[in-house]
Amino acid sequence: MQAGDVVSVMAGNRPEMLAAHYAVPMIGAVLNTVNTRLDADAVGFILNHAESRMVLSDAASRDVASLAAKAKNVQCVVFADDGERHASLDVLDLLADDGIDIALENSAVVDEWQPISLNYTSGTTGDPKGVVCHHRGAYLNSIGNVLALGLNSRSAYLWTLPMFHCNGWCHTWAVTAAGALHVCLDKVDPGVVFAEIARHGVTHMSCAPVVLYMLLNHPAREGHDPARRVNVAMGGAAPTSTLINELDALGFDLTHLYGLTESFGPVTMQTLAEHQNSIDAAAKAVELSKQGVRHISASRVRVLDDAAKDVPADGVTLGEIVLAGNTVMAGYYRDAEATAAAFLNDVFHTGDMAVRHSDGSIEIKDRSKDIIISGGENISSIEIENALHQHPAVLLAAVVAAPDPKWGETPYAFIEVRPNAGVNSEELKAYCRERLAPYKTPRHFSFGELPKTGTGKVQKFMLRARARELAAGAE
Amino acid sequence: MQAGDVVSVMAGNRPEMLAAHYAVPMIGAVLNTVNTRLDADAVGFILNHAESRMVLSDAASRDVASLAAKAKNVQCVVFADDGERHASLDVLDLLADDGIDIALENSAVVDEWQPISLNYTSGTTGDPKGVVCHHRGAYLNSIGNVLALGLNSRSAYLWTLPMFHCNGWCHTWAVTAAGALHVCLDKVDPGVVFAEIARHGVTHMSCAPVVLYMLLNHPAREGHDPARRVNVAMGGAAPTSTLINELDALGFDLTHLYGLTESFGPVTMQTLAEHQNSIDAAAKAVELSKQGVRHISASRVRVLDDAAKDVPADGVTLGEIVLAGNTVMAGYYRDAEATAAAFLNDVFHTGDMAVRHSDGSIEIKDRSKDIIISGGENISSIEIENALHQHPAVLLAAVVAAPDPKWGETPYAFIEVRPNAGVNSEELKAYCRERLAPYKTPRHFSFGELPKTGTGKVQKFMLRARARELAAGAE
Repeated sequence: MQAGDVVSVMAGNRPEMLAAHYAVPMIGAVLNTVNTRLDADAVGFILNHAESRMVLSDAASRDVASLAAKAKNVQCVVFADDGERHASLDVLDLLADDGIDIALENSAVVDEWQPISLNYTSGTTGDPKGVVCHHRGAYLNSIGNVLALGLNSRSAYLWTLPMFHCNGWCHTWAVTAAGALHVCLDKVDPGVVFAEIARHGVTHMSCAPVVLYMLLNHPAREGHDPARRVNVAMGGAAPTSTLINELDALGFDLTHLYGLTESFGPVTMQTLAEHQNSIDAAAKAVELSKQGVRHISASRVRVLDDAAKDVPADGVTLGEIVLAGNTVMAGYYRDAEATAAAFLNDVFHTGDMAVRHSDGSIEIKDRSKDIIISGGENISSIEIENALHQHPAVLLAAVVAAPDPKWGETPYAFIEVRPNAGVNSEELKAYCRERLAPYKTPRHFSFGELPKTGTGKVQKFMLRARARELAAGAE
Repeated sequence: MQAGDVVSVMAGNRPEMLAAHYAVPMIGAVLNTVNTRLDADAVGFILNHAESRMVLSDAASRDVASLAAKAKNVQCVVFADDGERHASLDVLDLLADDGIDIALENSAVVDEWQPISLNYTSGTTGDPKGVVCHHRGAYLNSIGNVLALGLNSRSAYLWTLPMFHCNGWCHTWAVTAAGALHVCLDKVDPGVVFAEIARHGVTHMSCAPVVLYMLLNHPAREGHDPARRVNVAMGGAAPTSTLINELDALGFDLTHLYGLTESFGPVTMQTLAEHQNSIDAAAKAVELSKQGVRHISASRVRVLDDAAKDVPADGVTLGEIVLAGNTVMAGYYRDAEATAAAFLNDVFHTGDMAVRHSDGSIEIKDRSKDIIISGGENISSIEIENALHQHPAVLLAAVVAAPDPKWGETPYAFIEVRPNAGVNSEELKAYCRERLAPYKTPRHFSFGELPKTGTGKVQKFMLRARARELAAGAE
């Protein structure tokens, strides 16, 4: 290994995964954390595109990781299993045994703009894009997280958010910077979550709403002491008033974070001010559904109209959220075209359409890109559409995000059936499951002619509105 | 005013002083805070050397500031007095009345390395040196302070440390970055300090030991609730075990900070670990007398021997503390020679001689520069010696720092009297008071032949040891 080499890791929130967030950047190498829910083909695509030199894997991901690594001729090193050796951190020993040269003296961090991580995220096209993050941005956003969440040396942070997801929104580094305690959770088991909260006096955690629903629906919540408040940074979707009420009773205080892999995680945040503690849950939900104000380390967060002018702070006029500054990625790896498109006019285009409120906060109302964010993970609409288009009965498929209280969003598929053909939801679901990761399979299907523009382009904004209505009706 | 202009301020810890820390840098101008204890000549030197465009002053410093400003032909604007208008923040109104052009559009901060402040500090030569601090360093050290002290949005910071002193060690910006409350104290009155602590729920303050002695000796301490802990960041001198015990009973927890104006304030820190809370006061004093470990935003803190090699971590071998990284000044303003000397071999030389302990902390044992740090302020030995040398009875004067539990250090003067002449302590004290600010006047005088090297140079290290012994005997 040497400076600039890419080291891929496929693992849960284990101590080795945390250690990799330090060991890999410290030798000047680039950390590529891989979503553990991907299949070997998808992992292989990433290893190949990232030009990985090595894959580290935990026991749970061993099969997928080794299969992908073998296919791409990359070395795979598997962490010792907990069953064999408890909380093993002998990664470096293993490497030494395999005779891999770690030339520390040649590979220090020499430039704050050099890459620290390479995170693959689904964009509007089917293939995932490699987001290149630099040391400077990671440092600043980590510090921003400390300030945003009020972490200090007495804090204990519970790892319910996957570290592979955008380096845990930089909390992998933030918690250490604050001198706080990392409590690593290999996987999210609500019983274990409550036990660890009590055992370590957990003060902070981050997750998508889905994790919170799991906690609320688990019997172990009865044993949890609500007097010990836990600060929960939630991303991926706005909390409902019911969720807020239930969490409040449980002793969980919500912070709503908004960000993207391209922004090193959080770029805006919304919390309730002290005087808002007494407002009712519906009013709290209104406040917490906003994406909020600039994260302290985010240099520029603006909402621009088509003429690249800031929209008025009227809570109504829609514009696109654009970002600039230290905590914006360097670019998409080996994809100059996508990078240029994302940085049109020297600002990063999030594709999220928002309004500005008079209090300075922003609130997302729509999305201009074909992405569905489910359980905090990006899903490409187009990837699902491509799968559906292979079905002989499908003439035209359009997939959009439907709001979902648990997952934030789920894919909603609108299908125009070929003349003289017939198909139903169950058949298409099964068809998708064979071709897509389970979380990418649409939950709902709607059949009929799709709304199109004069030039024949599907009007997705109409379908999004339709999906919102249908989802609301289904609740 | 425009970018690059120097704006001098001579004021106590008033809201206007805090506002100046934002208003001046935001237009790209450079903030020059002036010690309010200086006389008009010393202030005039600074205005002239800094090429100030304007002096802002509070009512208390009006006479000195306006006298100095007039002598140097610089405009002087005095804040409205509290007596006239409460907590007035109408500085900009006043400026507008005077027709001064504040061209905001021409003066944003365009480069993170551009100067944010210019702080004059006494060095080894008589004339103060202008320390140029940049935005980048101020940003990072402010964030470092937030992390070091655990400031958050529920913190309340009491301003007992002068803001004019190295921009209040960057706390002027740090407290705001944490979203915490600034409690401005125009001057340190122990009764008011206790009242403000209770009124605002103060959680943090910073000061030199002298302020803590004032608090401990004031009857208002009886009304203070020790259950409400206050984190006190102390600089300028190590706390004695007596002080630690008394402060503990008062509910004050100590953090020992070490730094210089040239390092934007704190560059190392020492706190007690949780398991050390139960050790006795003498052992705590030993721990807290160390300068400690690297402040999180300090890039490099090393202790080097004469061959520029790190001294071993043996707690014995003496070397000079040298600094490098983001939180080191750009240089001394208009003094290339002093800057080059300070940055010999590309590291900043503090002049402080220290040992490294096996736990990674450093501890200062001596000083290679002729500076006395009294009540947190630098005093030049040479400036005092120059004054003494003008007395007809003085053949040779050597002034060194003597340890003082209240002030940290006080000047100790060793005098070799001219043959056939006679003089005593009282006479020399009175002589110094006429020529120096009161805090620069030596507390102690010792008469006799001075120890010299073969080439006739006074051996100050011997005098320092002598002063330590004499000070210990005097207690």
